[in-house]
Amino acid sequence: MHLLNNEQMISALQHLPDWHLHNGELTKTFTFPDFNAAFAFMTRVAMVAEKLDHHPDWSNSFNIVKIALVSHDKGGLTARDTQLALAIEKLLA
Amino acid sequence: MHLLNNEQMISALQHLPDWHLHNGELTKTFTFPDFNAAFAFMTRVAMVAEKLDHHPDWSNSFNIVKIALVSHDKGGLTARDTQLALAIEKLLA
Repeated sequence: MHLLNNEQMISALQHLPDWHLHNGELTKTFTFPDFNAAFAFMTRVAMVAEKLDHHPDWSNSFNIVKIALVSHDKGGLTARDTQLALAIEKLLA
Repeated sequence: MHLLNNEQMISALQHLPDWHLHNGELTKTFTFPDFNAAFAFMTRVAMVAEKLDHHPDWSNSFNIVKIALVSHDKGGLTARDTQLALAIEKLLA
């Protein structure tokens, strides 16, 4: 699994609305009506992450979930990050 | 619900091993064998938080869960925070 080059990253972001590159990570902030909905989303993401064996760095405060993806073992972004981001988007589609 | 005074805070911390006061919040870092165990713990905490109607600010990275408790509406720590911390400890007892 190689680090994504700029062209690959730009191409991936075209399919990832509201995801941003921030400090070398692929990030998005999600807002829900309440904690129940936020944590329900997190539970679905957790199962997808476990299945893909790639896990988010993430935080939650009441109805807000912030997700940051990076391939720690590669020191940057790889296709595993964009794959997980796409899978997360699918949950919300 | 009033802000806790120093004496009340010190007294509460005696029953909360490895919880710390940090930037005005009540914090603890939990380490688990893997993501599955970490998220299972988060799920139990989520249900306790929902029941108490008091929710943590928290983050997770693979097997690590960091919890920070504060009563945002009161601008500091109240009995709701120590109550939630005690309930979280009970989950691990």
